[in-house]
Amino acid sequence: MATVQLWTDVEAEADPRVQAIFADIRATRGSDFVNNFWRGLANDPALLERTWTSLKTVMAPGALDPLTKELVYMAVSIVNGCPYCIHSHTAAARAKGLTAEQHGEFLAVVGTANQTNALVNGLQIPVDSVFKVGDT
Amino acid sequence: MATVQLWTDVEAEADPRVQAIFADIRATRGSDFVNNFWRGLANDPALLERTWTSLKTVMAPGALDPLTKELVYMAVSIVNGCPYCIHSHTAAARAKGLTAEQHGEFLAVVGTANQTNALVNGLQIPVDSVFKVGDT
Amino acid sequence: MATVQLWTDVEAEADPRVQAIFADIRATRGSDFVNNFWRGLANDPALLERTWTSLKTVMAPGALDPLTKELVYMAVSIVNGCPYCIHSHTAAARAKGLTAEQHGEFLAVVGTANQTNALVNGLQIPVDSVFKVGDT
Amino acid sequence: MATVQLWTDVEAEADPRVQAIFADIRATRGSDFVNNFWRGLANDPALLERTWTSLKTVMAPGALDPLTKELVYMAVSIVNGCPYCIHSHTAAARAKGLTAEQHGEFLAVVGTANQTNALVNGLQIPVDSVFKVGDT
Amino acid sequence: MATVQLWTDVEAEADPRVQAIFADIRATRGSDFVNNFWRGLANDPALLERTWTSLKTVMAPGALDPLTKELVYMAVSIVNGCPYCIHSHTAAARAKGLTAEQHGEFLAVVGTANQTNALVNGLQIPVDSVFKVGDT
Amino acid sequence: MATVQLWTDVEAEADPRVQAIFADIRATRGSDFVNNFWRGLANDPALLERTWTSLKTVMAPGALDPLTKELVYMAVSIVNGCPYCIHSHTAAARAKGLTAEQHGEFLAVVGTANQTNALVNGLQIPVDSVFKVGDT
Repeated sequence: MATVQLWTDVEAEADPRVQAIFADIRATRGSDFVNNFWRGLANDPALLERTWTSLKTVMAPGALDPLTKELVYMAVSIVNGCPYCIHSHTAAARAKGLTAEQHGEFLAVVGTANQTNALVNGLQIPVDSVFKVGDT
Repeated sequence: MATVQLWTDVEAEADPRVQAIFADIRATRGSDFVNNFWRGLANDPALLERTWTSLKTVMAPGALDPLTKELVYMAVSIVNGCPYCIHSHTAAARAKGLTAEQHGEFLAVVGTANQTNALVNGLQIPVDSVFKVGDT
Repeated sequence: MATVQLWTDVEAEADPRVQAIFADIRATRGSDFVNNFWRGLANDPALLERTWTSLKTVMAPGALDPLTKELVYMAVSIVNGCPYCIHSHTAAARAKGLTAEQHGEFLAVVGTANQTNALVNGLQIPVDSVFKVGDT
Repeated sequence: MATVQLWTDVEAEADPRVQAIFADIRATRGSDFVNNFWRGLANDPALLERTWTSLKTVMAPGALDPLTKELVYMAVSIVNGCPYCIHSHTAAARAKGLTAEQHGEFLAVVGTANQTNALVNGLQIPVDSVFKVGDT
Repeated sequence: MATVQLWTDVEAEADPRVQAIFADIRATRGSDFVNNFWRGLANDPALLERTWTSLKTVMAPGALDPLTKELVYMAVSIVNGCPYCIHSHTAAARAKGLTAEQHGEFLAVVGTANQTNALVNGLQIPVDSVFKVGDT
Repeated sequence: MATVQLWTDVEAEADPRVQAIFADIRATRGSDFVNNFWRGLANDPALLERTWTSLKTVMAPGALDPLTKELVYMAVSIVNGCPYCIHSHTAAARAKGLTAEQHGEFLAVVGTANQTNALVNGLQIPVDSVFKVGDT
């Protein structure tokens, strides 16, 4: 049902760049499972490589913890209406400790933000000067 | 520049429901400042009341801490492209301790999620069966 | 295929808050049918309760009639690309009297609005001063 | 601030196709005012002509009344976050009789729909079979 | 799974307007295949006619070649998250010569644009005065 | 009006990573002008570096020419409703040869795609099996 072929492990073995990225995905995650997203991106090894490298860097622990990063990722995916992204990152968040209670609170925040965004847009509220920080 | 009048404090004083909500906003936040969003919603006191009550409940500390909730709120607002919401909640996140380093990491996650969402959509990747939880 | 379990009636009976909301949904609609949305929200009884209470209030007849409200709901759901929401509210609109002719006209307006929104965004048209109402 | 020049009446007079459309806009609306959107589209007379003709047909009274059509238009514009479209169609709705009370109810529906759309997306609720109408 | 019936050829034969449009789709494309989109629109013959006429004009070769137009169409469809549109226009682009390498580069641009759009929105970058062209 | 400070050249000189990226932007473009987007990203030098490096790679001539890539970029930015992105990439497209006629055709395609996306979503058209390529 994808718009491209999803690469099997056998096909990935035959392309050194794809093979290397699949190996790094497995090593980084400590799991043999490579999900469909990477199997689709394999059709363009350069895009696969840049996307994985960037994602690995961005989602690593830093000033924000990994679970918080997953929640931000999920919020973006929900507003974009990307079913695959919502499923895969909800699973990833659970693997990083998301509880049912946190999931419920997260959804409540996403729903409320989406609601107030619509109200603000509908009213075309001008930004209070106190909120402005940068140069004009 | 709004599509409705923004209520001044004098106008708010004249409507008991609006007055009560403005008072609760001030008490809850420990600040005399009432931002333009609430001044626009005041045109429909029932909507103002429901929105404030819901927002207050949802954004309160719970299984997720207030800063995490603000980040989720910001993510939604960025994808929706709501300038007012982005300004007001970035300011709110800073008031709750968001550092410049965390802000940079947050933006990197939002940008990466928006990027991969587009890639997934473009490729129409089918959901891996391992990600599915609920009933079909 | 959901990211959470959908509650069966048996499970709902075991939780007083969920049971009460399911009962009110049935009473309000005069139907024994409880659709999947509420069965998913049941995982967070407080969110289920707030969402149902708010929806019931907002969609009730008022200055706007129920069918007009359903059309507005459908328009939002179409732009957001939410398949479930489009299916359920198109069904609800039909139950409230939407004719095939009205449905066609509605879709034409949604399509035209989406088209001109893109043209306006692409041209970055400045707002005519005559359209501005509120304070700057 | 637009990405193209906005045509003045003098410039429009010099192009027969643009002149004809501007004249029809004025005649149809019974007003001498031509808003900026059409002045921007004038840069491509064929696009101006197709857009105006289509809009005029679609927004005319039919199985749905003009005010209901404006509300649907506004809902689309709000979710798309198009400031110009929101301003111009809120003004158009008021000219067609939108009351403050109706405006408040409309915004409440848009906000609620945007909220529940996010909840449905986040939960990835499967469509109840009773909602399905068409083939497949 | 659609919200309306999809018209079969037998049903289309019975309505002169639908029959004429289906015939023109076939003649224009040099193929007997009429895809589901038109079979759904057939429920409103006037909307079917306007949509097909407009699409045929807009997608015809002009100052931009047909493949470039398909890529622009695909980009819009990806950001809107419209699975049907992505599938049908990716297929159309391939029929017009899109190579796997071009597809990969296209996806990389769409992903990067979506990423930087989010960063710009998150930072609320003011427009450099050098980018402004039009009046005001 | 940004949510962060926009770095001046003097400030950029003081940070080696920012200085290096600003120098590369200038060298790559053959212009002394550094637009506000990069001045905002400078607050997070790592994000600035990754974003610029990725953008430079993705937008370089390849299997698709630079103007086509700009059009795809503009299409994404229009659907996302990102004013800054629309202004800056429309300017970039003009610098790469976009004519007024091409701009008009481009906008017509974006508008039509946005319109049909809404119609398809509203009708929930199932994907024709002939459009499906990849594994299920």
